[in-house]
Amino acid sequence: MENNLLKALEWRYATKKMNGQEIPAEKLNNILEAIRLSPSSLGFTPYTVLVVKDKAVREKLLPHCYNQTQITDSSAVVVFAAWKNFNIGQVDQYMQEIAETRNIPVESLDGFAANIKGKINNSSQEELSNWAAKQTYIALGFGLTAAALNAVDSTPMEGFNPAGVDEVLGLEAQGLTAACLLALGYRDEEKDFLAKAAKVRRNPEAFFVHI
Amino acid sequence: MENNLLKALEWRYATKKMNGQEIPAEKLNNILEAIRLSPSSLGFTPYTVLVVKDKAVREKLLPHCYNQTQITDSSAVVVFAAWKNFNIGQVDQYMQEIAETRNIPVESLDGFAANIKGKINNSSQEELSNWAAKQTYIALGFGLTAAALNAVDSTPMEGFNPAGVDEVLGLEAQGLTAACLLALGYRDEEKDFLAKAAKVRRNPEAFFVHI
Repeated sequence: MENNLLKALEWRYATKKMNGQEIPAEKLNNILEAIRLSPSSLGFTPYTVLVVKDKAVREKLLPHCYNQTQITDSSAVVVFAAWKNFNIGQVDQYMQEIAETRNIPVESLDGFAANIKGKINNSSQEELSNWAAKQTYIALGFGLTAAALNAVDSTPMEGFNPAGVDEVLGLEAQGLTAACLLALGYRDEEKDFLAKAAKVRRNPEAFFVHI
Repeated sequence: MENNLLKALEWRYATKKMNGQEIPAEKLNNILEAIRLSPSSLGFTPYTVLVVKDKAVREKLLPHCYNQTQITDSSAVVVFAAWKNFNIGQVDQYMQEIAETRNIPVESLDGFAANIKGKINNSSQEELSNWAAKQTYIALGFGLTAAALNAVDSTPMEGFNPAGVDEVLGLEAQGLTAACLLALGYRDEEKDFLAKAAKVRRNPEAFFVHI
């Protein structure tokens, strides 16, 4: 199985031109489920995931994404929207979710809750925003590997205008901001100059330090 | 294959107590190769990966990691060390790597190089550090999925004292700082209170917004 993974990761690349073909619902669901299963710091998951298939909405996103055509030539654009606002109520709700899932008294989580509340109270808004954004990158990693294993092409994107994307999707009113995007679809082998280009990665000797 | 992935991701959890068993070299290599294949913004890979197996070094890391026992009970601790300093020379070297890998003239990459140089020149040191740290989280995601597919347990960690970790590993002198860690090993089912706990994730209905 592990070799299947490496083959899939060799096969994938940041697709520059997609062909508009739709991803079967089952494959899209598999990728989304991998994203949902990705871990986050303290399990707090300070973000929401928007799955944008609507073509008209994606056309509105396009100019805010430097007109990268994968926004509209993909089958779906996954938007990882990080929380902008943090409060104690979010921690309490998370504790409720843990208590219900594990069938334990919520009071048994008081120490854990105090930990997260302390982090929220002792960090600046900017620190919390950076922290939330980083968690979305773990989920982006899960989405990318899941796409590759499902033979679905993908483009991770952080080059976009967050304010524009937020406005199109009404994220600000929900206390969210787009942290990174993941276009999912199928490569256009003819038209994508990168489709046949060799993958560039630092050599293991330069990349890894073994201690 | 995709269902194998979801099964593996259901099986994995942030292991709190490991049993000290060593990971076979082939599996560790598979996980590291997945990390090496992970993408980064502009392909720039502004980080280095340290693979710490040496027990004495891990014992020195322990107090800087809030004494989380996975640091020493794991088989290896992967340290994602983000670049602290950015300069034009790094971009030129990256262009050389692309040109050599793809057998194209380095001048054909001038526009791409100017892009990255512009980003470096127009961003603050803090913005660049945050940017680099985010890229390590994609790689962390790749390492976590690869570990799960290789039936290796893992703990992602960002709760540590970077200055202490940097000092033990001599990272500062290399212009690096620890951004996140990944302990790899095997769960101690008896002693890990989380080993049999149900996984807590937000419900799909609350987590995803379909547009």
